[in-house]
Amino acid sequence: MPTIDLNADLGETTGGIAVADDPAMIALVSSANVATGFHAGDPHDIAATVRAAAERGVTVGAHIGYRDPGNFGRTTLDIDPDQLADETLYQIGALDALARAHGTKVSYVKPHGALYNTIVHDKSQARAVVDGVRAFGDLPLMLLPGSVAIDLAEGKGLRVIREAFADRNYTSAGTLVPRSEADAVITDPDAVAARVLQVATTGAVTAVDGTVLRVDAESVCIHGDSPGAVELSRMIVEKLRADGIDIRSFL
Amino acid sequence: MPTIDLNADLGETTGGIAVADDPAMIALVSSANVATGFHAGDPHDIAATVRAAAERGVTVGAHIGYRDPGNFGRTTLDIDPDQLADETLYQIGALDALARAHGTKVSYVKPHGALYNTIVHDKSQARAVVDGVRAFGDLPLMLLPGSVAIDLAEGKGLRVIREAFADRNYTSAGTLVPRSEADAVITDPDAVAARVLQVATTGAVTAVDGTVLRVDAESVCIHGDSPGAVELSRMIVEKLRADGIDIRSFL
Amino acid sequence: MPTIDLNADLGETTGGIAVADDPAMIALVSSANVATGFHAGDPHDIAATVRAAAERGVTVGAHIGYRDPGNFGRTTLDIDPDQLADETLYQIGALDALARAHGTKVSYVKPHGALYNTIVHDKSQARAVVDGVRAFGDLPLMLLPGSVAIDLAEGKGLRVIREAFADRNYTSAGTLVPRSEADAVITDPDAVAARVLQVATTGAVTAVDGTVLRVDAESVCIHGDSPGAVELSRMIVEKLRADGIDIRSFL
Amino acid sequence: MPTIDLNADLGETTGGIAVADDPAMIALVSSANVATGFHAGDPHDIAATVRAAAERGVTVGAHIGYRDPGNFGRTTLDIDPDQLADETLYQIGALDALARAHGTKVSYVKPHGALYNTIVHDKSQARAVVDGVRAFGDLPLMLLPGSVAIDLAEGKGLRVIREAFADRNYTSAGTLVPRSEADAVITDPDAVAARVLQVATTGAVTAVDGTVLRVDAESVCIHGDSPGAVELSRMIVEKLRADGIDIRSFL
Repeated sequence: MPTIDLNADLGETTGGIAVADDPAMIALVSSANVATGFHAGDPHDIAATVRAAAERGVTVGAHIGYRDPGNFGRTTLDIDPDQLADETLYQIGALDALARAHGTKVSYVKPHGALYNTIVHDKSQARAVVDGVRAFGDLPLMLLPGSVAIDLAEGKGLRVIREAFADRNYTSAGTLVPRSEADAVITDPDAVAARVLQVATTGAVTAVDGTVLRVDAESVCIHGDSPGAVELSRMIVEKLRADGIDIRSFL
Repeated sequence: MPTIDLNADLGETTGGIAVADDPAMIALVSSANVATGFHAGDPHDIAATVRAAAERGVTVGAHIGYRDPGNFGRTTLDIDPDQLADETLYQIGALDALARAHGTKVSYVKPHGALYNTIVHDKSQARAVVDGVRAFGDLPLMLLPGSVAIDLAEGKGLRVIREAFADRNYTSAGTLVPRSEADAVITDPDAVAARVLQVATTGAVTAVDGTVLRVDAESVCIHGDSPGAVELSRMIVEKLRADGIDIRSFL
Repeated sequence: MPTIDLNADLGETTGGIAVADDPAMIALVSSANVATGFHAGDPHDIAATVRAAAERGVTVGAHIGYRDPGNFGRTTLDIDPDQLADETLYQIGALDALARAHGTKVSYVKPHGALYNTIVHDKSQARAVVDGVRAFGDLPLMLLPGSVAIDLAEGKGLRVIREAFADRNYTSAGTLVPRSEADAVITDPDAVAARVLQVATTGAVTAVDGTVLRVDAESVCIHGDSPGAVELSRMIVEKLRADGIDIRSFL
Repeated sequence: MPTIDLNADLGETTGGIAVADDPAMIALVSSANVATGFHAGDPHDIAATVRAAAERGVTVGAHIGYRDPGNFGRTTLDIDPDQLADETLYQIGALDALARAHGTKVSYVKPHGALYNTIVHDKSQARAVVDGVRAFGDLPLMLLPGSVAIDLAEGKGLRVIREAFADRNYTSAGTLVPRSEADAVITDPDAVAARVLQVATTGAVTAVDGTVLRVDAESVCIHGDSPGAVELSRMIVEKLRADGIDIRSFL
C-alpha cells in the first residue's frame, strides 16, 4: 500500500489571531510544521497546536524562520550565518520544550517563507541552518528538491525529506512557477488531488510543459490558511484514501 | 570554609548593543542569570555568554521575563497565567538548547524585572511560573525572600534559592527600600562588601533601622551593567576571598 | 433624517496576514479605526487601508494600542503614564503621516483592546491618553460610555464620541456582559440590526433585563474580522438604509 | 569664519537601556540623528532626547532604519520598496509628532546602519527612501558621498547633505576602510580632530594612501556611544573652537 506524508504550516496563531484553521488541519495531515514564534506564533497558541498534534499522533516539525513577525518571515534578512545558526537552535529548543510538555517532541525541521527560499541558493545561510539543526540533534530537514541545503545537510549526515507542493505548478527546470505568473497556483481541486496522487505513487510531478520531473518527494505540502483551503485539503485526503493511499508521516 | 553564590544578570546584549560587561562578570560570579530573548538578548549574543559560562564553570540560569523588549521587561503585563506558563517553558527550552550546544545546561530559573517583582505578591502569575518551570523539569527557582512564589514552588517540590541584594538597603519588614527613596542603593564599596560578607557568614542582612533580618540567602545578586559596577564587583570578590569566603554555586 | 456613524477596526493586516476584510468593510462604514503598528498593522498594509478610506470618503481614526503585537494589544501593560502619553502621540503622528500622503488625515482617536478597557477605570492611564492626544492636536476621542476617560477628556476640551456595540449585550448597569457569559454576544442578525436602529433613532440601548440605557452613542462599532461578520455588517447597513437612516461620520 | 555641522546618533535608548550618553552629546553636536523606534528607541526616551535637542537649539533629524530592533538595524532586509517607502514615512511622522510636541520638528532624514549602507548601491531601496521622504515633505537627506541615493534624491528635488566620518579611515576610492581591517578606525584623538578640521576648512578628507578626496562634506558624524567616545567628542569640539571653527547646523 503506497503511503504519502501530508504536511501543513500550523501554529502561526499570534495573540489569538488565527492564520490557519489548526484544529481542522491537524485532523487531516500527518506532519505539522509548527511555527516557533520568530515569523509567527506565540507560546500559548503554539502549545495548543502541539497538544492537538500529540493527541492525533501527528508528527511535529519546527517551522523555523527569520525573527521578523512584522513581515511574517517573508523577507530575506542578510544576517550573519553564525547568528542564523544560533537562531535555528533557539527556535528548535523552544518548540521542543513545549512539545515535550504536551507529550510529543520536535521530529524534523522545515524552514519557513523567505528562509526556505533563500537557502535554495545561499550556501552560507544553508550551512547555518544545517549547523543549527545539528547543534540540537540529528533531526531530518524538510527542503525543496534542488535546494543547495540538501547536499550540505546530507554531507553532514542529516536525513533530508524532499517535499512537493500540492497546488503549485512547476517549470520544466523543476522550480515553482513564480506567484507573479498567472498559472502559478493550481485551483482545480481534481488537478490538485491528481498531483498529490502522482507524488504518492511515483514520487514525480508533471511540469506545465508536460515534462515529468523526478522530485523524489516523500511529503506533500498542503494549506489550511483559508476556509476554501481546508475544504480543498479535505477533498485531497478523501481522494487519497479512496485511491488506497495511506497518509502517514515519513518517519 | 563558608561559601556564597554570587549571581548577576547577563546575556542581555541585543543586536550587539551590550548592557553589561559579560566577559568581565563571568570571571567574577558563580551563577549567571542569562537572558532568554524575551526582555533582552538575541540568540547569538546569548550563545556567546553561555559559552563563556561553560568555559569558566559558571552555572547558567534562565533569566525569564515578560515578552517585552521595548520596556526591557520592566513593565508588568496582566497576561493570562496559562500563557505565562507556556512562555516560561518556551524561554527555558530555548536557552537550554543554546546552553547544551555549548557544553552546559540551564540549572536554575530566575525571573527578571517586573516578573520577579510581580510574583512576590501575584499568586496566579507566581503559580504560572512554577508550572512552567515544572513542565520543563525540576529546576531550582531563585526568588526574593517573602515572595508568595516561594511557598507555591516548594509546595510543588521545587527547590528555592533565596537571594539577597548586595547594594540595596532593606526595610525592617524585609522588603527593599524603594528606588524612589534616597537611601535605596548602597554606594559605599566597603558597605556593599560587608553586606555580602554578612550574608555569606550568617545568611542575614541588617535593615536600615538596624533590625537583623534572617533572609536565609544562598546567593547574592551583584551587577555588571556599568563600568563602576564591574569595578565594585571585583572589589567585593577580592574582599570575600581575603576573608576566606569561597564563591561557588549553590548547586 | 436620522444619521448614525458606523465604525470598525481596520488596518490590522500585518506582514500580509489579514485580520479583517478591509476592502469589504471600507465600503460599509463611515469611520475606520485604523491600527497604528503597535497592537497590529504594518506601515504598508496600513497605507493601503487609509488610501481606500480616502477614496471612499471614510473618516480615519487612530486605533492606538499598547505596543504589544504578540498579544494583539489585548493584555494590559502597567506602563508609566508619561510613557503611554508619548506612545499615544507617536502612534497618531505615524498614522497621520501615512494618511496625509494618501489624501486624508487622522480625524479622531479610538483606543484598542486592553487599552480601551483599562482607561474605563484607570485614571492615570486615561489621563495619559488624553495628554497624548492633546499633544498632537484637538482630536475627538471615541470611548465607551461610563469610561473615566470621558470626564478627563471633556475637562481638557476634547470632544468625546460615545459609541455603542452592535452585537454585544449590556447589563442594567450599562457595562457590557462579559465574554465569559453565555449571552455576551448577540448573534441574531435581526436583533443586531434592531440594536443599531435603536441607537440611531434614540441614542439608547436596551439591557438584557429590559432596562433602557441612555448611552448617547453617536457611533456604533461593527466587526469585519470573519466572513460571517462582513455579511452581518452588510445586512445591518441594508436594514439601516431601508429604515431611512443615513450612515455618516460623526464629524 | 568657517563652519561645520557635527551630527551624532541619539535617541537610541530603549526601555531605559542607554546606548549613547544623549545629554552629554546634545551639548556638543549641532545635529541629532534621533532614532524612531524601528532599529532602536522607544517613544518616551525619544521624547526626552528631542526635548533636550529643542532646549539646546540642536537640529533634529529622523534616523530611520529597518524595523529590526533585535539586530539594531544592522542587517539588510530585502523588503519590497513600496513597503520601505511607507516605513520611511511612518517613522518620520512618528518622530515629527514627538518633536513638535516638544518645541522642535524633524528637519532632515539620515538612514541608519544597514539601510544607510544598502542604499549606497541598491537603487530600488534608495528610491523607496527618497519616495518616503518626499511623501512627508521636502526634507534634506544626509548621505554618504558616492551613494546612489544622492542622484535619486537630487533628481527629485531633495537637498542632500554629504557627511564625513570623524574616526573612520577612507580608501583611495572614497569608501570607508571596512571594519574588518586593522586600520578601519582612527583612535588617536589628534588625528580625529585633524580630520574634522580638514573637512570643516576644505570639505575634503585624506585617504589612507594620502589621496585627497573631495567629499564636499557639510557635516561630520561623531559618536557618543561609550564614555571614551564622549570624551573624544569633547576634545574635537574644543579643538574646533580653538581653531575658530563655528559648529552649527547645515540648515
